[in-house]
Formats: sequence, structure tokens, C-alpha cells
Amino acid sequence: MREITAELLPDMARGAAVLGTGGGGDPYVGRLLAQQAIREHGPVTLVDVDEVPDDAVIVPTALMGAPTVMLEKLPSGDEISRALRAVEELIGRPATHTVSLEAGGLNSMTPFVVAAEQSLPLIDADGMGRAFPELQMLLPTLAGVTAAPMAMADERGNTLALRTIDNPWAERLARSVAVEMGCTAATSLYVLTGRQLKDHMVAGTITLCERIGTAIRRAREEHTDPVAAAADVLGGRRVFTGKVVDVTRRTAGGFARGEARLTGSGPDTGSVLELSFQNEHLVARRDGRVVVSVPDLICVLDADTGEPVTTETLRYGLRVSVLGAPCDPRWRTPAGLALAGPGYFGYDHDYEPV
Amino acid sequence: MREITAELLPDMARGAAVLGTGGGGDPYVGRLLAQQAIREHGPVTLVDVDEVPDDAVIVPTALMGAPTVMLEKLPSGDEISRALRAVEELIGRPATHTVSLEAGGLNSMTPFVVAAEQSLPLIDADGMGRAFPELQMLLPTLAGVTAAPMAMADERGNTLALRTIDNPWAERLARSVAVEMGCTAATSLYVLTGRQLKDHMVAGTITLCERIGTAIRRAREEHTDPVAAAADVLGGRRVFTGKVVDVTRRTAGGFARGEARLTGSGPDTGSVLELSFQNEHLVARRDGRVVVSVPDLICVLDADTGEPVTTETLRYGLRVSVLGAPCDPRWRTPAGLALAGPGYFGYDHDYEPV
Repeated sequence: MREITAELLPDMARGAAVLGTGGGGDPYVGRLLAQQAIREHGPVTLVDVDEVPDDAVIVPTALMGAPTVMLEKLPSGDEISRALRAVEELIGRPATHTVSLEAGGLNSMTPFVVAAEQSLPLIDADGMGRAFPELQMLLPTLAGVTAAPMAMADERGNTLALRTIDNPWAERLARSVAVEMGCTAATSLYVLTGRQLKDHMVAGTITLCERIGTAIRRAREEHTDPVAAAADVLGGRRVFTGKVVDVTRRTAGGFARGEARLTGSGPDTGSVLELSFQNEHLVARRDGRVVVSVPDLICVLDADTGEPVTTETLRYGLRVSVLGAPCDPRWRTPAGLALAGPGYFGYDHDYEPV
Repeated sequence: MREITAELLPDMARGAAVLGTGGGGDPYVGRLLAQQAIREHGPVTLVDVDEVPDDAVIVPTALMGAPTVMLEKLPSGDEISRALRAVEELIGRPATHTVSLEAGGLNSMTPFVVAAEQSLPLIDADGMGRAFPELQMLLPTLAGVTAAPMAMADERGNTLALRTIDNPWAERLARSVAVEMGCTAATSLYVLTGRQLKDHMVAGTITLCERIGTAIRRAREEHTDPVAAAADVLGGRRVFTGKVVDVTRRTAGGFARGEARLTGSGPDTGSVLELSFQNEHLVARRDGRVVVSVPDLICVLDADTGEPVTTETLRYGLRVSVLGAPCDPRWRTPAGLALAGPGYFGYDHDYEPV
């Protein structure tokens, strides 16, 4: 258990955006929101997974939608807290803790906003060990934990409660509502007990975000290689360095979808890397051959500063390094691959661990 | 107060489809559903508006979506009752009565299903005196009555509760969910007190449906003109008789939208009537000139039998008569016209009462 103050957030947000694999929202926006909430309501207590009682009532929150839109349309009021309180009403009990569902520049930071506003301890964990575009893509789904009872809220004051027959239906209905709410919505879902958290979530994600973010910053300060420093903490490897020469991007079905094309430099001169994304990077192909694929992590960093580059800020001329890093081992099981492997996203290649 | 038994329903459903102005669902499907529910659960008690106590808790229900789809995808279980029970949970009180929100082959009949299943008295009224495509188009909206708290349910078991800032937002969010649920959904909304019902709803709609349906049937039995008989009860007039020569139809945004073209016969020989619809008929143009327009009623009947023809069953070769009939006078006020007049639907003609 430790107190998180505002000055710790920039490193955490930077690391969270690396783990967000291009999605999960903008780290600058995320940490500004969290810093403001902490300044207003005081520091947030971060607790370790093993400090959480088995009967804890954990109510997570997340922003849902297209990150391209979230960059311009920020959460503007208490909509995330309203979503959490709507779930408390649905389950008839107050939350004892909150937690983030995915790693990402926004989705690792907005739980600090809720924790500060609602005076709830935040658990050092998440539900994926990365970010994924669809809401059923959470490790607890593999264990039968349900997304619903779920609530959604927008900045206007509309709220919505869902009880669905399964998690894919929660995704379908919530996605269409998120689109109508303006392509972003605050959500609260996957109520968990402490026992379920320990068994099915990823422990230590916030601390890992902080370690990644700190390693990048220190490498910059010490004039060593920040990309190598990030790869080292992630247990991953650099798969490409080059320049972005083309980005095709569209907001469709409530997601930011697109492709980016990179031409190599240094040892990668003469090669081309193609990235396909749906909020998050899904597949990286080098000269036509898959080199990293979901569920493994594809992290795009500024080649010089190591700063994470989200899919919505990818642009022509940017010099980037692309890392491949291993996902949580549960994603590599047959059930994990069925939920968020290449086949689910419509690709016909077999998954090969990075 | 009187008991409604299964054999009274065919006349009521026929008349309801006339008042439905092309929308509100298929009367054959509607009365089969209602008859089955009455056979299973016993007759339904129909009460007059002035028999309802001022503090009654009235929970209405309706089917929402594209009637073209409802023709093939019927309510298959208890989804309408589930929507009603979800609203009872939201308001924390049981319903004392139920009522239909619009007139229509399905939407005047499914309230009998709910009344029978839930043993609730059904009130002889509706919220429009006709059918309209969007859920905020209800006379109580003019008096500030809110659609939410509102619930939706599908045949799979998904349910959803909405609290919105206004009725247009209820329409927007619910429409997108209805589309995702398969272009139809059961809804429960516009909880009313008895006092609000008396002040803002249309009294006697079910009885009016029965009178219209009976008049058409009797005229057929007596070999007189069933179309004239319907016009007589509606206080309307025949504006065209002819043959359908073209129908363009598309399911878009959760509605059945389209146009139909009729060439005249008898006294209308040489003229052309064009109908534009969005679930319901919105505008009838004779030789390019508007002859009937929302909010007035445009009712298309089989020219020989007087049987109502819904927009989804309009087809090439059908010989029909088109009636224009006056709407409830509250629709003709500036506020009523702003809510459901030609301008709202994107037409630039001024409304002229039929």
C-alpha cells in the first residue's frame, strides 16, 4: 500500500501508454485528468492485489470508444464516477475498491480520477496486461466473470444500465450506445470480488507502468537508449526502426481502424513494416511476413525519445521503433487465443509467440 | 370497464392498423399474439380513462424498430413483460395499470399481451391518437413528461435501463440499441400517473380502433363501401384511389423508410399520388402538390375490402384508397408541429390541416 501523489503520474502514464500497444488513450490527457483529481481530492491509495480481502467489492471503470475522438472530446465532468455509482445501485452495494480494466494512457489514469473522487483505494492490477479494443477481451471473461451488470454515462447526464446474457452482447450493445454518445462513453463493468481479482486479473500493472515510464525517462536523462530501456522492462525486443511513410485511418463502428506503413532505417534499411490497428496495434508485418501479432504486444515508440506513440497520433514522417513483447501467458491458451487471437480479428495467420 | 375476450380482437387490430397510418406493426400478427395471451391467461380488463385513480402507476410498453423486420421477427417470449418489470424495478413500485403508447396493428395489441401476462388492467387510451416513428413523438412530451426511466429487452434475455436528460436522447440511445438487438426491441417507458394520463394522453383509442374495425367489417358484410365506412368513423375523407405502381423501401437507421407511387383510377384517372414514409406515412403528394401531411393521418386501405395496408406490405399492383384524417388537435399547436410536423421530418412545406 502506498500513496500516489500527482508527481508520480507522468512516468506511470508514459508506461501505461507503452503497455496500451497504441490504444488505451493519450497519456498526456490521462495524467492531466488524474493530476487534477488528485490536486482536488488528495492522493490516491494504491493497494497490492494480496492486500485486497477476498470479499472486497471491486467496481472497475473504463472509457470506451475511439481514441481518435477521445483526444478531442475529454471526459468533462463526473461521468466516470456516475457510471461507477450506477453499478453500485445495480448491485445494491457500495464499492470497496476500484481497479483499471486495461493498461493505457487514459484507461490507466482515469481510475485515479474515480479513486480520488470517490475516496476508494485503487488496486495495482488490470484485466489484460495491455489494452484490447473490445470489452469482452478481459482475462476474467475466460473464467466466466460477466461484464454486466454494467453502466454507461456521458458528459451530458445520460446514464444507462445493462444486463446481458454474455460479454459479447455487452460489447455489442455498449458499442452502439458509445457511438451514439459521441464515440466515447464512461463505463463501469466487471464487478469482481477480491477472490476473483486474485485469480483472474493481472497483478502489479500500475507498478509495471511506472517502471517502464521511469526507465524511459532515466535513459533519456542519462543519454542512453530509451527504447532499449523500455524493451528491457517489457521483456520484449525491437523488431523495426524506421520512418512512418503512410497512415490510413478511419473511425468505423466505434473504433479507430487503420494501417500504417514504415520504411526501415539503420539495420532495417530496405525493409518495410506494416501495422494494422483497431484502436490497438493488432499485427506487424515485415516485408509481408507477420513478425508480431495479437495477443502479443506491439509497442510503437519515438525512436529518439522512447515516448509511446498511440495509433491516433501516428503521422507521416515520425521516426519510430517498434517493439514486440510477450503477453500474459493466459492469452496464449486456446481459450485466450479464441478471445483475442489473430483469428478473432479476421486474420488467417497462426499465432507465433514473439 | 369491460372484459376483452379473444373474439373482439380482430376488429380492434384492424382499426388500430388504420389509425397506425401505415406503421405500428402488422394487425394480423398483433391480434394473434394478443389472442394467444388471452387464451392462456384469461380476458383483459379494459378501463376507461375516467375510471383510473389520479395516483395510479401506469407503465406503458411498445415495440420499437422497423416494422419490415417485425413482420419476420416476432416477439418470441416474455420480453415485453421483462421490459415492464425492469421499469418497475427502476421506479421501485409495481405498476397498477398499463396502456399503449401508439395506435397500430402491433402496438395496440401487444399491451393486451402484457396486461394478460401481468394481470394488469389496460387503459382505453394511447399517447398519440395515431402512430409516429420516433419515441419522443408523444403528446405527454409536450407537457414535459419524460420517456425515461425507460427499459428495453430482447428475446435473448438482454435488458437495458436508461435515464436520459430528455426524450430526444432516449430516442437516440434506444434506437441504436434497437438496431443492435436486431432492428426490433421491446420497450417500456413514459411512466405516468393517472392524473398525467387524463391530462395528456388520448382517451378512448382502443374503443375507436374497435369502432373503425367493426365499421369496415360490417360494410363488407353488408356489401357497402368499407373505405367510406372507415372515413366516416375517422372524420376523414378519401383523397385518392388507384394502383400502386412503384415502391422503394430501405431499412435505414432502425426505420423502414421509402416512397410509393400510385396511379389513379375512377375519378382520379390521370393523376399520380406519391407517399413518403418513415415507418408511418408522412406526406401524400397529388401531382406534386401536398394533399395530406403529418401530423394528420394518411391511411392506406385496400380499395375493395377496406383492409388497412401497412407500409411494409405495400406492393406493386395493389389497388388502394388513401384517406386523410385529422390528428388530435394538440398536434396542430406550434409545439405539436415542432415535435412531429413536416419541418421536423425535413420537409419544407407548411402544414395545412386536412
